[in-house]
Amino acid sequence: MSERVRRGRPGHDQESVLRVAIDLFNRQGYDATSMGDLARELGLTKSAIYHHVTSKEHLLELALDEALGKLTAALDTVRADPSYSPEQRLRAAVRSSVVVLTEHLPAVTLLLRVRGNTPAEQKALARRRDIDHRLAEMVREAAEAGAIRADVDPLLASRLLFGTVNSMTEWLRDDSDAEALADTVTTLAFDGLMRHG
Amino acid sequence: MSERVRRGRPGHDQESVLRVAIDLFNRQGYDATSMGDLARELGLTKSAIYHHVTSKEHLLELALDEALGKLTAALDTVRADPSYSPEQRLRAAVRSSVVVLTEHLPAVTLLLRVRGNTPAEQKALARRRDIDHRLAEMVREAAEAGAIRADVDPLLASRLLFGTVNSMTEWLRDDSDAEALADTVTTLAFDGLMRHG
Repeated sequence: MSERVRRGRPGHDQESVLRVAIDLFNRQGYDATSMGDLARELGLTKSAIYHHVTSKEHLLELALDEALGKLTAALDTVRADPSYSPEQRLRAAVRSSVVVLTEHLPAVTLLLRVRGNTPAEQKALARRRDIDHRLAEMVREAAEAGAIRADVDPLLASRLLFGTVNSMTEWLRDDSDAEALADTVTTLAFDGLMRHG
Repeated sequence: MSERVRRGRPGHDQESVLRVAIDLFNRQGYDATSMGDLARELGLTKSAIYHHVTSKEHLLELALDEALGKLTAALDTVRADPSYSPEQRLRAAVRSSVVVLTEHLPAVTLLLRVRGNTPAEQKALARRRDIDHRLAEMVREAAEAGAIRADVDPLLASRLLFGTVNSMTEWLRDDSDAEALADTVTTLAFDGLMRHG
């Protein structure tokens, strides 16, 4: 399918169909959602919806690409900054992850629920594992630089750290303040709940 | 249904059927799992399975009761100890939550995936919200006692704290060391990733 947005009826384009599809997938589950459900939600006939998108799986791919693309780009930006120490790099990675999660909440929520039931989901899971490896590597580098505590396995620390970030999809709202949340999560992760000094 | 374990064929009782059902629900989703799937997994006929359990929903209720019962009992025990300061009480609540999650991993995993599609799920969600309120209350009490940082909203701190604990269902294995994990999670939550002193 071409990158160009294909238009059917006035009032809908591929982008607006995608937004509604992602919300529906998150609400009732991807597997349980049919193209008929999506057409009903959009007020279109089932045949009209195919003016906008080729298949349910293509909508899933677009959604997962959005989440994975933004997360990958954020890590690329962090990694490319030569001024960061390993600790600053890890802090920036945590901050960026929270910002992407908040700003692309529906797509990231869908990504985190993917269990690998289809080839598109398996491909997304592989890309998600790659991101997890990059994050774990940043934790390991910060540990080796002596910046973070040595008494916790870096892989475990990484899982807990980004498990915290991912768990935010359970209660975040689209209108949450991404920058303020990113600061709070980074502060709690690095400095803990205890009052210091 | 009576509390007494009803036996059908040798080799299965309600408890062993429940373990297999919880694993199957976690693997392929509760909604997508039929009693026929469960019978196949157990090597029973579909009619034989009803010697052990009355319905799929009853299995779900038993599983959710297990998770909710253990979490509630752990918080009751923590709350009942008059020797705890608010900070110690919160630390104990975090520790206990990790231990329950590790020791009852399949049932807690199922609980955390419940979305409220049936009356049994809605009842479980209400009990889960009650537990979340009790945990948030412990965070608020520790904040009011000056034990934890005042610059983070207690509700947000509570969500992040127990979001971290709940996210462990994504990667934990049944054979994980519950006590060691509970120590690590509590240390990271209260003292943070940074090397101190």
